[in-house]
Amino acid sequence: MITSDTALSRDACVARDANDPIGALRDRFVVPEGVIYLDGNSLGPMPRAAASMLRRTIEQEWGQDLIKSWNSAGWFEMPLRLGDRVGALIGAAPGQSVVCDTTSINLYKAVQAAIGLRPDRDMVIAEAASFPTDLYIIEGAIGSAGRPMQRRLVGADSPSLEALLDDRVAVVVLSHVDYRSGALLDVAGITEQVHKAGALMVWDLCHSAGVVEIGFDRNAIDFAVGCTYKYLNGGPGAPAFISVAKAHQAAARHPLSGWWGHAAPFAFDRDFRPDAGIKRFLCGTPPIISLRGVEAALDALEGVEVAALRAKSLALTELFMARVAALLPGLEIMTPRQPSLRGSQVAIACEHGYSIIQAMIARGVIGDFREPDVMRFGFAPLYLRFSDVWDAAEILAGCVRAEPWRDPRYSQRLAVT
Amino acid sequence: MITSDTALSRDACVARDANDPIGALRDRFVVPEGVIYLDGNSLGPMPRAAASMLRRTIEQEWGQDLIKSWNSAGWFEMPLRLGDRVGALIGAAPGQSVVCDTTSINLYKAVQAAIGLRPDRDMVIAEAASFPTDLYIIEGAIGSAGRPMQRRLVGADSPSLEALLDDRVAVVVLSHVDYRSGALLDVAGITEQVHKAGALMVWDLCHSAGVVEIGFDRNAIDFAVGCTYKYLNGGPGAPAFISVAKAHQAAARHPLSGWWGHAAPFAFDRDFRPDAGIKRFLCGTPPIISLRGVEAALDALEGVEVAALRAKSLALTELFMARVAALLPGLEIMTPRQPSLRGSQVAIACEHGYSIIQAMIARGVIGDFREPDVMRFGFAPLYLRFSDVWDAAEILAGCVRAEPWRDPRYSQRLAVT
Repeated sequence: MITSDTALSRDACVARDANDPIGALRDRFVVPEGVIYLDGNSLGPMPRAAASMLRRTIEQEWGQDLIKSWNSAGWFEMPLRLGDRVGALIGAAPGQSVVCDTTSINLYKAVQAAIGLRPDRDMVIAEAASFPTDLYIIEGAIGSAGRPMQRRLVGADSPSLEALLDDRVAVVVLSHVDYRSGALLDVAGITEQVHKAGALMVWDLCHSAGVVEIGFDRNAIDFAVGCTYKYLNGGPGAPAFISVAKAHQAAARHPLSGWWGHAAPFAFDRDFRPDAGIKRFLCGTPPIISLRGVEAALDALEGVEVAALRAKSLALTELFMARVAALLPGLEIMTPRQPSLRGSQVAIACEHGYSIIQAMIARGVIGDFREPDVMRFGFAPLYLRFSDVWDAAEILAGCVRAEPWRDPRYSQRLAVT
Repeated sequence: MITSDTALSRDACVARDANDPIGALRDRFVVPEGVIYLDGNSLGPMPRAAASMLRRTIEQEWGQDLIKSWNSAGWFEMPLRLGDRVGALIGAAPGQSVVCDTTSINLYKAVQAAIGLRPDRDMVIAEAASFPTDLYIIEGAIGSAGRPMQRRLVGADSPSLEALLDDRVAVVVLSHVDYRSGALLDVAGITEQVHKAGALMVWDLCHSAGVVEIGFDRNAIDFAVGCTYKYLNGGPGAPAFISVAKAHQAAARHPLSGWWGHAAPFAFDRDFRPDAGIKRFLCGTPPIISLRGVEAALDALEGVEVAALRAKSLALTELFMARVAALLPGLEIMTPRQPSLRGSQVAIACEHGYSIIQAMIARGVIGDFREPDVMRFGFAPLYLRFSDVWDAAEILAGCVRAEPWRDPRYSQRLAVT
């Protein structure tokens, strides 16, 4: 049992690290020397075993075994096999998830399938504050749904979900965790509310998969999509996942009907006949080497309970917010203090956010910045220590006091950050 | 000048190898000891420099440099930068090609965009004998085009293109090289014919990119898609490419409107505004490690003229057909003998094809089999020698004479080959 109050001293943090029941997981990852990495909500670090696994895939499976690796190295089965493993992390029983394509493409499939399952409804509800690609993809899906559909937005400056849910709504698409504020939505309550209105629910789990418990089956989620390169640590641009409830699969159709989704891909029929199950959500040949990165990442999560990750994640974010509040009382913390309302990141609004983030990076603390004024700090429980969090808050405070916005080294913006 | 007749003796083949002006390119690839690899039309071998390039991307860029590699390692620019290099190989000026997603997904974008550019037409012509995913994706694109569209098939047991081309045809989708027979279509003539009918042309270049001259600009091709893991050797499932003629880009729309296709992806606008140019054909975050495989493969083609590859490819396939005709006069060679009518593979129809291919693989000659009875042999000029072709024909003849279909080791089919 840990009783030390980490917010009181660095020593207490070090003591808590020493007693952290999942502290040893850090050794499964490569964390560069001198770096406190608070950007695992953008790109997770490399699992230590990834280098050798990828080397084997590249040099032996591709280089030596060539075409036969499709069978002998199990390449064909990777999307489904890895899908089941991601499924386990989000509470989805096997046969409901595949790893393939990108989050954007998978969201397109999910929204199209959901629209098709509600043929007498013409409304898609999305979130004003959602990561923009979700809004853009919903635009594209609506425009190619085969019947007139509309998109309406919920959110802070828009109507509430309750006000919009009526018998015109076919599907609701929400992000489990807001990519800016880090606010967490109530999956169980909202999914139930949406179902009561007769609509279907698509959850974007990009910022929660691997770090928050989801309960895909328990909460009767219809569709979920998410990426594998944030808290899942699958590597840059690693293929995304899509999960579809068993009950919907036989009737769920989407127009990206490529051969990998066919019931018999090697029969080379002229007409498309979708696989009976989740494989109908595959499309074309997946990028095998990048898929192996996902496999290495899932190996690094082997034997780890998401509940334990969630508990440590909440402790890390609570510690950071407490320290920031103590050191920098003038800063506006956007992330909810109540544990049930936040994901695994802390966002701070500050007009000088851009230059503060740059100054912190120069001192080894890597966070990121999102327009217009949001400093984002991700707290991945797999490899971060309480002492890292203490130090990061100290360095943030030091950087704010140094007023880096007056220093051209830190204030000049790159075109893309 | 090479004057020896390779079809007459193995010694003549060895002599021709010694004088092959592009013979040294073989050293740029890993060809496993004891293997004659005739399946580069399915999965190209590993470029020798790929191992170190990928190791650097994995261990340094991902492992050590983490999120900053998006800028410092040029990850953001890879789809466009590699696209221009693929473009050069198919005769497309820069700014018309990107490497991203899969061939199936890119075909969906191309067909949707083409349909949108011909709003008063309702017909898509496809090829009965095309690789099935093309037919399946066209089905999906037609069903989500936003207006009633039909698909009609051309081909051996179907009407001719000439018979079908009328003012209802919006777009024609054809494969440059037939994946079974290896027959090559006349890009210049057909594209002109399609344009005369007021329709647009989408070429699937999966079996020609990197080994046949295409003339994308010279032939005024509208759209092209293709994969990078066959004759381009980008690695298993490596991202595909899509090329769109400059003249169409501003008006070409498709529904896979993800953030990477936005005019300002990091402005995080609520509404989708496509990039002015080819980037509008990007969608989500690409799999960077697999993209690096494409880069290594393009490096291995640096300084190589496609015309030289084409000349050697034709000489290799001609040699193989001549030897097969001499050794096994009873076998039916499906591939046209006339150089202008074939790609870079030789197909032989034989009821015992499956077991013959298995027996050849056991002797180190790797080809593949396609239902119902097609033995396929790909001849990639980058790493194959004339002496390899001579030996492969000898081994084919030996295998046929051994009647492997009577041997359970070779005749029992795997579920997937």
